[in-house]
Amino acid sequence: MDLRVRKLKNIELNRLSIDEFKSQQNWPLVIILDDVRSMNNVGSVFRTCDCLGISTVYLCGITGQPPHREIHKTSLGAENSVSWEYHSSIESLIDQLKSQNYTIAALEQTDQSIDIQEFEPNDNPLALIIGNEIDGVSDKALSRCDTILEIPQFGTKHSFNVAVSAGIALWELLKKMS
Amino acid sequence: MDLRVRKLKNIELNRLSIDEFKSQQNWPLVIILDDVRSMNNVGSVFRTCDCLGISTVYLCGITGQPPHREIHKTSLGAENSVSWEYHSSIESLIDQLKSQNYTIAALEQTDQSIDIQEFEPNDNPLALIIGNEIDGVSDKALSRCDTILEIPQFGTKHSFNVAVSAGIALWELLKKMS
Repeated sequence: MDLRVRKLKNIELNRLSIDEFKSQQNWPLVIILDDVRSMNNVGSVFRTCDCLGISTVYLCGITGQPPHREIHKTSLGAENSVSWEYHSSIESLIDQLKSQNYTIAALEQTDQSIDIQEFEPNDNPLALIIGNEIDGVSDKALSRCDTILEIPQFGTKHSFNVAVSAGIALWELLKKMS
Repeated sequence: MDLRVRKLKNIELNRLSIDEFKSQQNWPLVIILDDVRSMNNVGSVFRTCDCLGISTVYLCGITGQPPHREIHKTSLGAENSVSWEYHSSIESLIDQLKSQNYTIAALEQTDQSIDIQEFEPNDNPLALIIGNEIDGVSDKALSRCDTILEIPQFGTKHSFNVAVSAGIALWELLKKMS
């Protein structure tokens, strides 16, 4: 690398203002957090959605909501650019999204999961459900899904961290939608 | 989805034992953490490396080392499957890896960065440097890199969380190596 390589200053990154973020054309993709316990994970998902240009996060069940100090610590304020709604019942949220023609996908390791790389989005918008740190996506949500996706794994651990798995899955899905 | 969809039990996931992990064929990819401050991020990167089957993490500068309670909290013990080495000087580590024919890449937003999706791995093994939460990859490391990669972003924030960006970058690079 050239010794003169230079990190870009914040102003050179041409990031959007919150108003520009909210008015840009959205990816046809939203994320649903189903009983996510850790506020760090919630905040980190907000930050990831901001970076990837995903407009909406749905928070369900026990998932914490902004404003919250622990969420803000990892979101760095992304809860102000990314829209969010709280729904106590994920079943009724899924029903609502289905009535708007969303395809409902979950990220989970089940007997019916497919490799996320094999998933082919269609013309409908997609909602991706990410579940609890220990118990994963709830059975009541899984049974309402149109498809269940998994990230292939090669190690000793059961699963990725929730915020990391959300990041990888959203990245992979957006590549397919690009 | 079929109402009978069933989450897989841990034993059905056919995860590797630590010995199996250490003896499996490695991806030609290692990760270097350059002055990563947060133990949560260090632990999370260990867990991601375990899940993706990446054998080695190099910890440099102020990056914390196992055993450490805060690292273990997010690694869930992945520091026992994923090998690690501490090097106080990232420059000497880079020189050592270059002598072993590694291509040295950093994840950073600079005036010479390319979209990670455009990167084409060659036959040499790859080392990916991830930098500090605030300051990014150090200038001394950047000037020794063969290439600098960035994840395209569409939001208001400067950057992804360190552990999330590592996850997305490693996933994207492994897809190219598959």
